[in-house]
Amino acid sequence: MPTLFKNGTLITAEGAYRADILVVADKIVQIAAEIAPSETTEIVDCTDRWLLPGGVDVHTHFDLPVSGTRSSDDFFSGGRAAAFGGTTTHIDFAIQSKGGSLQAAYETWRAKAEGRAAIDYGLHMTIIELNEAVAAEIPRVRDLGITSLKLLMAYKGSVMVDDATLFRVMQIAAEHDLLVMTHCENGDAIAQLQADFMAQGKRAPRYHALSRPAILEAEATTRALALAETAGCALYVVHITCEGAVEALRKARARGMRAMGETCIQYLHLTVDALDKPGFEGAKYVCSPPLRTAHDVNVLRTALRDGSLQALSTDHCPFWFEGGVAGRPAGKELGRDAFTKIPNGVPAVEERLKLSAELLEASRWVAVNCTQPARIFGLYPRKGALVIGADADIVVWNPQTQGVISAQRHHMQVDYSVFEGMAHRGAPERVYLRGALIVDGDQWLGKAGQGLYLPRQSSVWL
Amino acid sequence: MPTLFKNGTLITAEGAYRADILVVADKIVQIAAEIAPSETTEIVDCTDRWLLPGGVDVHTHFDLPVSGTRSSDDFFSGGRAAAFGGTTTHIDFAIQSKGGSLQAAYETWRAKAEGRAAIDYGLHMTIIELNEAVAAEIPRVRDLGITSLKLLMAYKGSVMVDDATLFRVMQIAAEHDLLVMTHCENGDAIAQLQADFMAQGKRAPRYHALSRPAILEAEATTRALALAETAGCALYVVHITCEGAVEALRKARARGMRAMGETCIQYLHLTVDALDKPGFEGAKYVCSPPLRTAHDVNVLRTALRDGSLQALSTDHCPFWFEGGVAGRPAGKELGRDAFTKIPNGVPAVEERLKLSAELLEASRWVAVNCTQPARIFGLYPRKGALVIGADADIVVWNPQTQGVISAQRHHMQVDYSVFEGMAHRGAPERVYLRGALIVDGDQWLGKAGQGLYLPRQSSVWL
Amino acid sequence: MPTLFKNGTLITAEGAYRADILVVADKIVQIAAEIAPSETTEIVDCTDRWLLPGGVDVHTHFDLPVSGTRSSDDFFSGGRAAAFGGTTTHIDFAIQSKGGSLQAAYETWRAKAEGRAAIDYGLHMTIIELNEAVAAEIPRVRDLGITSLKLLMAYKGSVMVDDATLFRVMQIAAEHDLLVMTHCENGDAIAQLQADFMAQGKRAPRYHALSRPAILEAEATTRALALAETAGCALYVVHITCEGAVEALRKARARGMRAMGETCIQYLHLTVDALDKPGFEGAKYVCSPPLRTAHDVNVLRTALRDGSLQALSTDHCPFWFEGGVAGRPAGKELGRDAFTKIPNGVPAVEERLKLSAELLEASRWVAVNCTQPARIFGLYPRKGALVIGADADIVVWNPQTQGVISAQRHHMQVDYSVFEGMAHRGAPERVYLRGALIVDGDQWLGKAGQGLYLPRQSSVWL
Amino acid sequence: MPTLFKNGTLITAEGAYRADILVVADKIVQIAAEIAPSETTEIVDCTDRWLLPGGVDVHTHFDLPVSGTRSSDDFFSGGRAAAFGGTTTHIDFAIQSKGGSLQAAYETWRAKAEGRAAIDYGLHMTIIELNEAVAAEIPRVRDLGITSLKLLMAYKGSVMVDDATLFRVMQIAAEHDLLVMTHCENGDAIAQLQADFMAQGKRAPRYHALSRPAILEAEATTRALALAETAGCALYVVHITCEGAVEALRKARARGMRAMGETCIQYLHLTVDALDKPGFEGAKYVCSPPLRTAHDVNVLRTALRDGSLQALSTDHCPFWFEGGVAGRPAGKELGRDAFTKIPNGVPAVEERLKLSAELLEASRWVAVNCTQPARIFGLYPRKGALVIGADADIVVWNPQTQGVISAQRHHMQVDYSVFEGMAHRGAPERVYLRGALIVDGDQWLGKAGQGLYLPRQSSVWL
Repeated sequence: MPTLFKNGTLITAEGAYRADILVVADKIVQIAAEIAPSETTEIVDCTDRWLLPGGVDVHTHFDLPVSGTRSSDDFFSGGRAAAFGGTTTHIDFAIQSKGGSLQAAYETWRAKAEGRAAIDYGLHMTIIELNEAVAAEIPRVRDLGITSLKLLMAYKGSVMVDDATLFRVMQIAAEHDLLVMTHCENGDAIAQLQADFMAQGKRAPRYHALSRPAILEAEATTRALALAETAGCALYVVHITCEGAVEALRKARARGMRAMGETCIQYLHLTVDALDKPGFEGAKYVCSPPLRTAHDVNVLRTALRDGSLQALSTDHCPFWFEGGVAGRPAGKELGRDAFTKIPNGVPAVEERLKLSAELLEASRWVAVNCTQPARIFGLYPRKGALVIGADADIVVWNPQTQGVISAQRHHMQVDYSVFEGMAHRGAPERVYLRGALIVDGDQWLGKAGQGLYLPRQSSVWL
Repeated sequence: MPTLFKNGTLITAEGAYRADILVVADKIVQIAAEIAPSETTEIVDCTDRWLLPGGVDVHTHFDLPVSGTRSSDDFFSGGRAAAFGGTTTHIDFAIQSKGGSLQAAYETWRAKAEGRAAIDYGLHMTIIELNEAVAAEIPRVRDLGITSLKLLMAYKGSVMVDDATLFRVMQIAAEHDLLVMTHCENGDAIAQLQADFMAQGKRAPRYHALSRPAILEAEATTRALALAETAGCALYVVHITCEGAVEALRKARARGMRAMGETCIQYLHLTVDALDKPGFEGAKYVCSPPLRTAHDVNVLRTALRDGSLQALSTDHCPFWFEGGVAGRPAGKELGRDAFTKIPNGVPAVEERLKLSAELLEASRWVAVNCTQPARIFGLYPRKGALVIGADADIVVWNPQTQGVISAQRHHMQVDYSVFEGMAHRGAPERVYLRGALIVDGDQWLGKAGQGLYLPRQSSVWL
Repeated sequence: MPTLFKNGTLITAEGAYRADILVVADKIVQIAAEIAPSETTEIVDCTDRWLLPGGVDVHTHFDLPVSGTRSSDDFFSGGRAAAFGGTTTHIDFAIQSKGGSLQAAYETWRAKAEGRAAIDYGLHMTIIELNEAVAAEIPRVRDLGITSLKLLMAYKGSVMVDDATLFRVMQIAAEHDLLVMTHCENGDAIAQLQADFMAQGKRAPRYHALSRPAILEAEATTRALALAETAGCALYVVHITCEGAVEALRKARARGMRAMGETCIQYLHLTVDALDKPGFEGAKYVCSPPLRTAHDVNVLRTALRDGSLQALSTDHCPFWFEGGVAGRPAGKELGRDAFTKIPNGVPAVEERLKLSAELLEASRWVAVNCTQPARIFGLYPRKGALVIGADADIVVWNPQTQGVISAQRHHMQVDYSVFEGMAHRGAPERVYLRGALIVDGDQWLGKAGQGLYLPRQSSVWL
Repeated sequence: MPTLFKNGTLITAEGAYRADILVVADKIVQIAAEIAPSETTEIVDCTDRWLLPGGVDVHTHFDLPVSGTRSSDDFFSGGRAAAFGGTTTHIDFAIQSKGGSLQAAYETWRAKAEGRAAIDYGLHMTIIELNEAVAAEIPRVRDLGITSLKLLMAYKGSVMVDDATLFRVMQIAAEHDLLVMTHCENGDAIAQLQADFMAQGKRAPRYHALSRPAILEAEATTRALALAETAGCALYVVHITCEGAVEALRKARARGMRAMGETCIQYLHLTVDALDKPGFEGAKYVCSPPLRTAHDVNVLRTALRDGSLQALSTDHCPFWFEGGVAGRPAGKELGRDAFTKIPNGVPAVEERLKLSAELLEASRWVAVNCTQPARIFGLYPRKGALVIGADADIVVWNPQTQGVISAQRHHMQVDYSVFEGMAHRGAPERVYLRGALIVDGDQWLGKAGQGLYLPRQSSVWL
């Protein structure tokens, strides 16, 4: 049954205009001034509504094993929450295990999604160890539909790689047109600072942030950019949080480098002061890189506006505040006696569009939330755009809706919100995935496993 | 008669996709995967072709009076040449005369276009003098469809304004949501340097460039940005040519200022060495700001790519190399004995799209040549976009065509090309203005006066 | 009678060391490990004391006529106060009058000092108007012992010059090896902002600062640097107060320009918040450029330390808070109804060394307060250094003295201190001018007219 | 026998002045306008001569073992050559061996100098490996007269340390007021690039430079600065060669960091083009970091002038071009078949003062060659200054001498000069070490072993 979106205003990455959209099966097949419905056409009245391409969140961690527990959202609960927030595509990370192959990581993550995925998804490949076999395997990730490689410069003793590994992967990526993604913090210095604080009995959540100062992120960002420039590969810096890192990226782009970067919604609203909340509540806000200052918040907002940052994601990685009870996996409480044991991450996948709508001009908002992530990660025009032939991932957005964020109402499987009490204007009313209505107001109409795996094309440099 | 563009690839500012476009009368009314023609529909086969929105050149000087002569293209010849190059909209400058009103300037320029304009056009208002009457008149330019004010910080004794005038206009612009545009060079220092060179008998074309060093452009750009930030208005810096000016703009944007800038096609290909050509030939390349170094060329190309510059224009302002003969108005020869008397400007309006096609990724190329100029100057979505409801200004572009620029073949009314001999790949095959085919290969099908005046909305900050 | 300074620690611009100093008549004639006194030698025991070269304050305004009044210190009272603070040389400004010659300005200022000067002094020449006669006169200021020219980019309608004048003077300065000094603020924009505030009834002292935002100082600094670079002259930027101006200077120096700059002691301690003091008290702190933020204070302190600023001065220009009574000339009260009428300036000449002693490493402190100002302004090695042949301007400094600044105790002829209540460590105990003890603790031993006029050599670029 | 230097002009870091200097035994005891000689006084007529403090070269490698050979100058030949060039103090590097203690390294290097040292010397401690024992030993280097620790971020598999080691040493240094020195290049990436070139059969000297691009130095400099800022220690970056590294240092200083840096004389004159000399001659110029571009040369010269770099050294590390014959140790020929085997380093200790004299204003020249290195490394006022109580290390410099650098005439024990044929103006005529004349024109009057070991104080931050 065709669906006709009547009288809406299309918001695209390049501007806004009035038109009707006709969807047949899973695709957008027609956009026109006035489309006459056939008898079987379902009509969605979009008067005074915006029509957006479904959001594309390129940085999530659903069902992520971390020491002693796992992130609290799986591919179903996380995808469903994303959908309630207007996001219909995400890219998660298949993570190589110690001694493991990339193929095995891919399979493991596909299995997590199998029968569970609530929205469409792709995978990045996280490399934590390099040897001849893995080096040989890298070019073959393309056959798995993967075109981006993630490496972490922090989390020493766990997933951190050294510069030799990072640089060698960058060389291979350059040769095979793969996009390298880096988590930029200096893990060596952080490990030492953490040990120091622990030895000094400084174990509260705030020391998490103090052990990860902004300058160590700026440093690692500069380093990743220099290594990528030397290797000749394109680089995408994930979760940029501070002025120093933004400046490093700006300068690299200004000298012609194929470099790009994202920030996450939490870094646009929250500051490090949250870690000082009374009791253990600061643990809710523990993520890496940590929250920064109000000045950094302003820098990041401006950088999204002026084009210095190209994408907005969430790094969604939720943990129960009170975990390990009532069937919940362990959560933030793991770190009650040691900030180093607090699972890192915040729940955010549901709130990205709502909480960025008022920060950005409408087309820029769609650009960084939908279109540019899709282009950078090889999903355009199938995803991220309201164009002919695209998947009919459509959000009917009411720009007038006023809401307040609360864990009482959110759909993420976690017992708190870092955005609790925050007001917003604008919210999704209906969300379509490949032509199917999956969210209607407060109602979930989708089902587990409906999400498809998305093989991806090469990255476009924006 | 409807026109159906079949099987083309649409290039938009956000990406590329395959679709058919249906035009009825002067508008794009439908975009769809497969549009069935009616009997009366004319079908344009666009297989292997790109479909672009008609180019928008926001900086031209047709029929411009300068001391002792006028620019050699009028609204007909200039517009026709633009069309041959794929540009269907331009914005020219109505220039206040000494003691004159803005209304009078508007009327003068409308009269120049009346019955002549070959493509659609808008007007900026250039203010050269401020008094109470003019100050009162500024807000009323909106009623004339004008939303941008141009001021020049150079050309002392002619159109240059001092900082007091510039700042006061900026305050008024801020209050009335008008965009200020500035020609940024320090006219006081330039006037002195020119007088010095002339007194020393240094009269050749190269001294034009030596009297206008890049640092004086960077200075004036910094000044205009500071004054605009203080006044609270949005600023658009025209014809940026050097690293210092690009850096000033980047920094202003990075601190959140509503600032934007353009460069012109000639600054992306030519260097100041051209002014040293034997004999008087350097005069062909005299424009202001002057051509710069190869390093600056690279900086400008990168700045368009990385988003630091938002638009590409031409500052088209042609003069005959051998003027004053055969019915031609006087031209470059006026300055044979004194570089200060060489009319400033180069012919470029026809070559912008062709000569930028290989410098930029396709969607960025459309963004800076078509969509963003339209948005910045309040013409979107009527112009600059392939969207429903837009004017059917459509360029059928063959990305495979190989050509060589030459004054032998160009349509600009001038006896030389600054790009003579330059090879390019990609060229327009057919150009439509509001649904009408006006250029078909080498053939001109339009007519004088077909161009409409375009009242403009407020500027969008990109 | 020779004077022997025994057992002191000499603090110079390059370091500290122990030695005895022998002064005969007005000169330092010997420095040695152990100097044996003759019978007639007066011995000054300097155990645990520092010996400094007398301070050199290159920016003062004694006996300055301003509209409706004059600065409250003349060459006697101001020089005496300077001496109490350890400063034995100052450079004041001879200011051309409208239509007047430079020679006349010189003579006027020499006459002010004649019979009054309490310490040695030199003169800068302030040019407010340029014509053929003045242009011809500029090179001749050398014959008057003047090697620096001051121009103001602010104070519109009074002493402000336009860029044409500034640039022409810079060219003449370049040719004749004169140092150009600029007061950098955009006077055109300031005049407009002042008129706006006044028209809006915003007449309190704080509007003085709001009418002179930091970005207008950064702008004018960038402009002066660009003009000087184009003209090829050396430039010294007076009273730098904000990060933007410091950055502009740093960049100019980094690209090889002969540029230097000073800040003043008040900008190292006070912030713009002082202008918000209750009632009219904010007027005490009105100076131009205005006081800035705490962030700027930190930037300035660092810039003195890292060598980005080369000198520390005072711009001493005091006015009575309650003037026009008891024989006092009019003062700050002139502006009670209009911030624009508050005489600009603060009393500071006495406090510079005391209030910078703890901010800087000792040799850097001497460098910026004594030695470098002397070198930059052609007085070295006669002034600013403890070297053989130098004038015996010696300060016996007790680094342990603890004091509190107060108008109750200061010697400046003015009824308030902007530093009231500020604690400091270190103070002069004895001050010698050309071998004569002029300050002994709280006692003044000098006399009016003892100060000599100092003809100056060319500037050295530091 | 006292020595009296009559009628010379003293050049100090703060300026120049005329005076006589009296030396008794090994010390400067008197500086005066006119010193009367006693009968036993030896008089040195210094009319038209400059008197400088003996040069202080804080970066040399005498008798350095490198794989398969050693540097060709030992403490005698190297020190003697230094003296001929006006340098009377050097600081060499005691280098920890694998598994070795710092104490052992210290003793090894003292033994190399014992009976050989021709000039006075100090030692830095190079740490290549950290464990509990070494960590405990670090504070005790003070007892050995050592106050600076060197770490290398390059030379993978040899002396390179990782960030964990570097950061931990920085923390210990911060606690014990030791200065950290870093060789900044990214050794991981360099090792990979070297392996790549070798695998591709690219074995010529030029690939040495291509395997060590400037951006990898800028990166490592940024990293060292960030780690030091986090650890809270002072940092001195050795042999800075490129704009990116200078900029990183400038920014760190501008934000208040206790950071300093040197460049070396070869980087002020030579460019990477030298590595392309025909045959194997490029090997003569192989050093690390490698020579850079002419643009970098200009940036470094300016950075010394504007205070952004605080010291000029040589990194003297000579190897025979034709070694392994005639009793010579192996030299550059080791790398005839593989650039990776060319011993790294150039001979330079003799030429520093001569080849920098014309690049800098005289007092700045003395500052960066003599005074500041002494202050930074805790030797002032004993070394680097013409002050009372200082060691009588005095250079009688003839500023008019014209010379040409040549291996035919130099005193370094090596068969080539990288500065061959370079003209200079100004040269030492007589060189005194602690009062003893050791160089008189072309004549060597010193003897092996006369050089003393110099225990050092804490670093001063300049």
